[in-house]
Amino acid sequence: MSRTAEEQANLDIVLGMFAEVLNPMDSAAVDRFIAPDYIQHNQSVEPGRDKLKAFLDMIREQTPNAVHDVKRAFVDGDHVTVHYHVRRWPDDLGWAVIDIFRVENGLVAEHWDVMQDVIEGGPNPLSPF
Amino acid sequence: MSRTAEEQANLDIVLGMFAEVLNPMDSAAVDRFIAPDYIQHNQSVEPGRDKLKAFLDMIREQTPNAVHDVKRAFVDGDHVTVHYHVRRWPDDLGWAVIDIFRVENGLVAEHWDVMQDVIEGGPNPLSPF
Repeated sequence: MSRTAEEQANLDIVLGMFAEVLNPMDSAAVDRFIAPDYIQHNQSVEPGRDKLKAFLDMIREQTPNAVHDVKRAFVDGDHVTVHYHVRRWPDDLGWAVIDIFRVENGLVAEHWDVMQDVIEGGPNPLSPF
Repeated sequence: MSRTAEEQANLDIVLGMFAEVLNPMDSAAVDRFIAPDYIQHNQSVEPGRDKLKAFLDMIREQTPNAVHDVKRAFVDGDHVTVHYHVRRWPDDLGWAVIDIFRVENGLVAEHWDVMQDVIEGGPNPLSPF
């Protein structure tokens, strides 16, 4: 593995954000990980850090038992990729999600993502993960 | 940028595969980039290298003008992430796709992906890219 100390720090920031913000859906922890001028590219969430907090509050109320199960994560310079499985309730097939984050000055500054329903009975017997 | 020579080579293999296999949807070029025991995690494609060739032939016949527009790409060790926009015809809103590839011995050995429809008129005015 060829990660620099700065790359490892960037990866750790993003995985810390998963552990302390996204998985517990904790809007109160957002400011420790997300930049004030956060650039949001998710198509379904209004832009900006405050709207991210409102989104976390909403999903925690709607699906308090949701889990965000990280399968693999990578870093290249200031960009971090995370592949994970969202399940909203215990028997939910859930979503496959890949996020890309840009880290700047120790905070998540920009975010892109793609999400897709996990299916059963498709043509490929292998796991999407 | 802290990429090693091996990382840059892995990234170049994947971007070469986009240029010579995926964008032209050319099944005849598959063997130069994809390992014989290729592991496919895409939910909608049957596993294996031969089924990938059949899939490319199918989409080239169905959407001969499709483009796969790479927006950003990253490498961490033997894993490469590519974020791109698929448009099947000129005015297609298309799909946002993030692929993760594992490269082994100079060939793409494993592939995960997530894809999502690009929408118009959603709550976020920013581009998904």
